[in-house]
Amino acid sequence: IAQLRLRSNTLWFVLFCFVLFLTAFFASKLEHESKHCNGKGFQRPGSSAFDRVYTANQNCGHAYPTFLAVLWCAGLLCSQAPAAFAGLMYLFVRQKYFVGYLGERTQSTPGYLFGKRIILFLFLMSLAGILNYYLIFFFGSDFEMHIKTITSAISPLLLIP
Amino acid sequence: IAQLRLRSNTLWFVLFCFVLFLTAFFASKLEHESKHCNGKGFQRPGSSAFDRVYTANQNCGHAYPTFLAVLWCAGLLCSQAPAAFAGLMYLFVRQKYFVGYLGERTQSTPGYLFGKRIILFLFLMSLAGILNYYLIFFFGSDFEMHIKTITSAISPLLLIP
Amino acid sequence: IAQLRLRSNTLWFVLFCFVLFLTAFFASKLEHESKHCNGKGFQRPGSSAFDRVYTANQNCGHAYPTFLAVLWCAGLLCSQAPAAFAGLMYLFVRQKYFVGYLGERTQSTPGYLFGKRIILFLFLMSLAGILNYYLIFFFGSDFEMHIKTITSAISPLLLIP
Repeated sequence: IAQLRLRSNTLWFVLFCFVLFLTAFFASKLEHESKHCNGKGFQRPGSSAFDRVYTANQNCGHAYPTFLAVLWCAGLLCSQAPAAFAGLMYLFVRQKYFVGYLGERTQSTPGYLFGKRIILFLFLMSLAGILNYYLIFFFGSDFEMHIKTITSAISPLLLIP
Repeated sequence: IAQLRLRSNTLWFVLFCFVLFLTAFFASKLEHESKHCNGKGFQRPGSSAFDRVYTANQNCGHAYPTFLAVLWCAGLLCSQAPAAFAGLMYLFVRQKYFVGYLGERTQSTPGYLFGKRIILFLFLMSLAGILNYYLIFFFGSDFEMHIKTITSAISPLLLIP
Repeated sequence: IAQLRLRSNTLWFVLFCFVLFLTAFFASKLEHESKHCNGKGFQRPGSSAFDRVYTANQNCGHAYPTFLAVLWCAGLLCSQAPAAFAGLMYLFVRQKYFVGYLGERTQSTPGYLFGKRIILFLFLMSLAGILNYYLIFFFGSDFEMHIKTITSAISPLLLIP
């Protein structure tokens, strides 16, 4: 019965991740459309510095719940150290996005989304953890060590700007 | 001691759900007041298409953490398949809300909240799961199968527009 | 192996809480900077009542995911009753913040952040729960009862305005 419970829990994680992924897909579609509508990313028309701080903060706030949920799943289902490293990288990228947003007006502002690579990395970690549970269940082979090694090896690639 | 732990965990779920419910209650009160203040739902005064995309996105972003938390509770405490179905329906309703918001200006725009029925459904699923744990604990009778059958039977009703 | 699993899970909680803490730190830095930029907290320039409702709602929405995650951690890792009490206090403080925001314009509006004390309290509860797990693991001494007594004793202090 423990195996049945495990299977239903992993099924639940798969569906939860699917909903998260669709939300991120909608956000990227929104960014694409807003670029057609307005040349400067998802920014309100307004020239003052305050307007730009406000918009940058809004855009950061919208990606935050998705990020927290993916970070949680990646840490629980896969390995903790690369997930925490990705979490710290997210904070640095967010800081950089803020500074870039407040920079020179002539320079191109960053788009609506940021940290796409980090959220994708955490999402793939969750998927790898789920696949590993299924492999244990159906084939009896455990690739947990290999997955942890691979994710630890890949995580420094997030440092590339 | 496992039963004691179970009881304290379900107590915690009850209180967590209560906080979520109060938040949703405040949001609905806000919608009611904003309709008095401004005839067109919770929309900033502004006529351009960009303004409307912006407002629709803001409104969607505010309900998102509550939705994720309720979805998570419903999946863990009750059954997974109806919860995932409700999650997919939420995404469709959100898409429809977006399209409706960007539609003709003469037409009535939707209000601040959307997907009230879906969040209520997920919340009732969580409550049913919690009540079931208490029934197991106090009376020793397990209605889990019945709850799963009932929620699976009710979930297609979310398709009604 | 259960102990090893426990240790890796608590390590994960430590890192998750660290990411939450850094986010809250960025938010407080943002509040500090926005006070330099604009005398009236993180409010958009706009005089109508609707503008103020809108801004108050935005500011509430941004702290919400952090609050939910900290509330969840505090309830799971430490004791449930003080965490639920802090959750209810958060809802009252939020209501008070709303009313204060919509008050007289001459009066000083509250800043961008609110409920700092409550989020700090929940965060310290999570840390105490994690430290207790480590103490059990390394020294075999269990302070869970003492921590629960202390947090229950401290929680009424949140009532002080």
